[in-house]
Amino acid sequence: MTLREREAVVADPRFFAKAKGPFSADVLADITQAELVSRKDGGDEPVGGYVGIAPIQAAGIRDVSFLDNRRYLSLLDQTRAGLVIIKSAFVKHVPDHCVALVTPEPYLAWSRVARLFYPYPAVVPGVHATASIAPTAVVASSAQIEAFAVIGDNVEVGAGCFIGSHAVISEGVQLGQGCRIGSHVSISHSLVGERVTILPGSRIGQDGFGFAVGPTSFESVPHLGRVILENDVEIGANSTIDRGSVNDTIIGAGSRIDNLVQIGHNVRLGRCCIVVSQAGISGSTVLEDYVTIAAQAGLVGHIHIGTKARVGAQCGVMSNIEAAQDVIGSPAMPVREFFRNVAVLRKLSKKGSKFAQNNSDVE
Amino acid sequence: MTLREREAVVADPRFFAKAKGPFSADVLADITQAELVSRKDGGDEPVGGYVGIAPIQAAGIRDVSFLDNRRYLSLLDQTRAGLVIIKSAFVKHVPDHCVALVTPEPYLAWSRVARLFYPYPAVVPGVHATASIAPTAVVASSAQIEAFAVIGDNVEVGAGCFIGSHAVISEGVQLGQGCRIGSHVSISHSLVGERVTILPGSRIGQDGFGFAVGPTSFESVPHLGRVILENDVEIGANSTIDRGSVNDTIIGAGSRIDNLVQIGHNVRLGRCCIVVSQAGISGSTVLEDYVTIAAQAGLVGHIHIGTKARVGAQCGVMSNIEAAQDVIGSPAMPVREFFRNVAVLRKLSKKGSKFAQNNSDVE
Amino acid sequence: MTLREREAVVADPRFFAKAKGPFSADVLADITQAELVSRKDGGDEPVGGYVGIAPIQAAGIRDVSFLDNRRYLSLLDQTRAGLVIIKSAFVKHVPDHCVALVTPEPYLAWSRVARLFYPYPAVVPGVHATASIAPTAVVASSAQIEAFAVIGDNVEVGAGCFIGSHAVISEGVQLGQGCRIGSHVSISHSLVGERVTILPGSRIGQDGFGFAVGPTSFESVPHLGRVILENDVEIGANSTIDRGSVNDTIIGAGSRIDNLVQIGHNVRLGRCCIVVSQAGISGSTVLEDYVTIAAQAGLVGHIHIGTKARVGAQCGVMSNIEAAQDVIGSPAMPVREFFRNVAVLRKLSKKGSKFAQNNSDVE
Repeated sequence: MTLREREAVVADPRFFAKAKGPFSADVLADITQAELVSRKDGGDEPVGGYVGIAPIQAAGIRDVSFLDNRRYLSLLDQTRAGLVIIKSAFVKHVPDHCVALVTPEPYLAWSRVARLFYPYPAVVPGVHATASIAPTAVVASSAQIEAFAVIGDNVEVGAGCFIGSHAVISEGVQLGQGCRIGSHVSISHSLVGERVTILPGSRIGQDGFGFAVGPTSFESVPHLGRVILENDVEIGANSTIDRGSVNDTIIGAGSRIDNLVQIGHNVRLGRCCIVVSQAGISGSTVLEDYVTIAAQAGLVGHIHIGTKARVGAQCGVMSNIEAAQDVIGSPAMPVREFFRNVAVLRKLSKKGSKFAQNNSDVE
Repeated sequence: MTLREREAVVADPRFFAKAKGPFSADVLADITQAELVSRKDGGDEPVGGYVGIAPIQAAGIRDVSFLDNRRYLSLLDQTRAGLVIIKSAFVKHVPDHCVALVTPEPYLAWSRVARLFYPYPAVVPGVHATASIAPTAVVASSAQIEAFAVIGDNVEVGAGCFIGSHAVISEGVQLGQGCRIGSHVSISHSLVGERVTILPGSRIGQDGFGFAVGPTSFESVPHLGRVILENDVEIGANSTIDRGSVNDTIIGAGSRIDNLVQIGHNVRLGRCCIVVSQAGISGSTVLEDYVTIAAQAGLVGHIHIGTKARVGAQCGVMSNIEAAQDVIGSPAMPVREFFRNVAVLRKLSKKGSKFAQNNSDVE
Repeated sequence: MTLREREAVVADPRFFAKAKGPFSADVLADITQAELVSRKDGGDEPVGGYVGIAPIQAAGIRDVSFLDNRRYLSLLDQTRAGLVIIKSAFVKHVPDHCVALVTPEPYLAWSRVARLFYPYPAVVPGVHATASIAPTAVVASSAQIEAFAVIGDNVEVGAGCFIGSHAVISEGVQLGQGCRIGSHVSISHSLVGERVTILPGSRIGQDGFGFAVGPTSFESVPHLGRVILENDVEIGANSTIDRGSVNDTIIGAGSRIDNLVQIGHNVRLGRCCIVVSQAGISGSTVLEDYVTIAAQAGLVGHIHIGTKARVGAQCGVMSNIEAAQDVIGSPAMPVREFFRNVAVLRKLSKKGSKFAQNNSDVE
């Protein structure tokens, strides 16, 4: 059996511990705030409730499944799942044996049900024998500190925190309760709120990229600010967030930052911003609330991005963006303009166009 | 002596251990499957065989060298090397004293000869005293586990594996035989084939970037898939490969991924794909076999890239690519079209063109 | 109090230790080589000297502040700072109570004053009890080695070096005096000069991305070169610098590399180059002295970038760049041409333009 052939497992028990179930339809309706819609005659909850989750084509009578995309409606017609999470428009496709959990937000409901069956691993209070904890650090007794973690002087680790193997939390850093810090993360010069998650290998709080040009060499500018990660922030793997030079670098509550993202010194993100992988935000730029920066986009420094603005993938933003604007391209422009440009250029350079002729003179 | 002046060493013995040689021309012909071409009169193998490798302009009579590029043919005319690896077309430039090893793939042959002289450091079986190995882990007795490595519960480490310092192999992960895992690598929720190499600092198997929009905040979607790295996969430094949400993230056998690459959840790569540094592949996108993604390219999610397609550097791919297509640009387009666009735009905006005049009206 | 409200602190004492002051105006003038300009009547140095630094709007009579940007001149008029570092053109805005330290380079002067008040943390000689030091390593007695650091066989660590927690310095590596190596850094196959700084998580000296196409699979090309980091180089967080294949990868003296930068095998940077975050330089490309590569730019391999050339953000460089050229765009072009192209394309695709009409024929 090749590795690829092994792939069809859902929630491989080597990696994912299932909660003690089963769960009844009522429990699922309750946590999802969704409605158990009257089934076609014969639809019925399996005795003892639902025991697992599965893709719609693989689910059985005691499994919960989910359909969001109209393209796969035929799978719903044929499913053997015992319960499906769907929008109301799909109810008529639900087979007789199947219960429908109806909600305008099926993906959110699915997410909650999946989390019910597969909760985050419980934090197991205690400090691994190999961890290095400074005597002046204050570590909540309910926190879990893994192998070779380093907790520096005067660090505070809140209740229920998980600190992964090889994480380094440097002098003075404060972590609010319920944080989950991945392996190999380093955090310095930072104040971290509650329920903040950082995936492995991210770098928080190091010096920013700032220097003055001296007579014979560059001279580093002291970075005397901090990083502030507000509550419920999540940061991906191997991202870098530099601390401020005079002001702080701030990531607003609930914001989500993906892998390999660069956040420069003094940058401020508002609440619930989204920054997708490999995007970069240069120093002192400000994002208001609910801004989305797509993958590989880059923002120059010292600009302002208005509330709910959306910056497209690979976009190069060189100036302020108004609230609720959608931009794309490098340099950034409104989405419509970008695609108009693409279309015009394609037309002009079409084979046979006079502009595309090698020897034509367009003067 | 400045650092820069010290640079002319080949295979600095501080870092590279040379195999016990010397090696005869026959041995070299055998491992490269190349042909020892009859030399001009007087060409002869040095007594005792070849003792090392060197650049063509620095090699001596007991060294092996290599020439692939026509631009440097004059160096071949003048070389003092005892043996050169070349294409047949270059044979007439080989000096009298020199043996020619002729092959249609001189770079491949050179690579094998260089590896013969400088093999991978041998794996030294044993577990470093500082490593942390869970009692339930199964570590082959022929594996080498370096300082401060962490091997979690129920992990399986195959025969002849090398696990670098500070690597963290989390609960349940399986590593086939002959894997080389660099320092500071983290692997979780993953099944790893045989002879897989991962350079320092890469992150394999963490949560992907997925969340639903809840009434007051984002809610993380459980990631219940895995990462599967098939046989002979190589992954560079500080790259990130997220595990799947429901399906697995799969890197097909023999594929090569460079540094700082992002692979999103549920992505599947076929056999022998190449992904160059700082490229990113968004969630659920599928690459068939032999696809090449050049540096800093970005692919949106949920698209399909056909066999042997090649995506150029910095390309932004927003839709499916047919097999064997070469694309470039952002948005991606056929290579010819891209350069035609560039040429047309240059022409139109040339100084003096009516389109480039500030006050011209093009309506 | 929310985290965000806590932000107004300058140099939070949890993270930054202030030097024993106070410092007199003469001392400040001396280290900045600036001139204490005669104040308007009444300006005077506070008894006992200056005790701290602060932003211009928050500074008090015993604080030093700084103004560089004409936009904020009104803040200078109203400042309560005891001393301000400014250009001569701003002197007339300095209030009566305030001393002006006048220099053509106020940012450089400010940087030095800030460093005087907040020097780098002193290196505390000694080896942490948990560090793993090979018996054959030579570690200067004045060096500081932090928790879980790994120092391999025959490594040399110079006087006054700081080696952060979890750093791995592999066999044979040499570090000159005064280097500061961040946590989780890995260095192998490298010669490192004096006063080199590497921020957390960077990877120096691993194998480059090179392989030959074999009959059934890719075959890795041995990387027998090194990385050479000359004196005063600084490297950001989570960057990757691959060692050379036959030649060395060289970063010239005084060069500054930001976070998440990729430097391929055999690349050579001259003196005082700047490479901003998420930029990538492909194999064997050469940068002369004083080259600047802005964020997210990408350079193909085997090209030559002349002295003082500047490559703009997100630029895609596919061929040589002359000395002192400024380029931008993908593919790279002179800055003027790039913006002319943008303007022409905007004009052509303007609503109403015949080129933007869907059905127009441009042949």
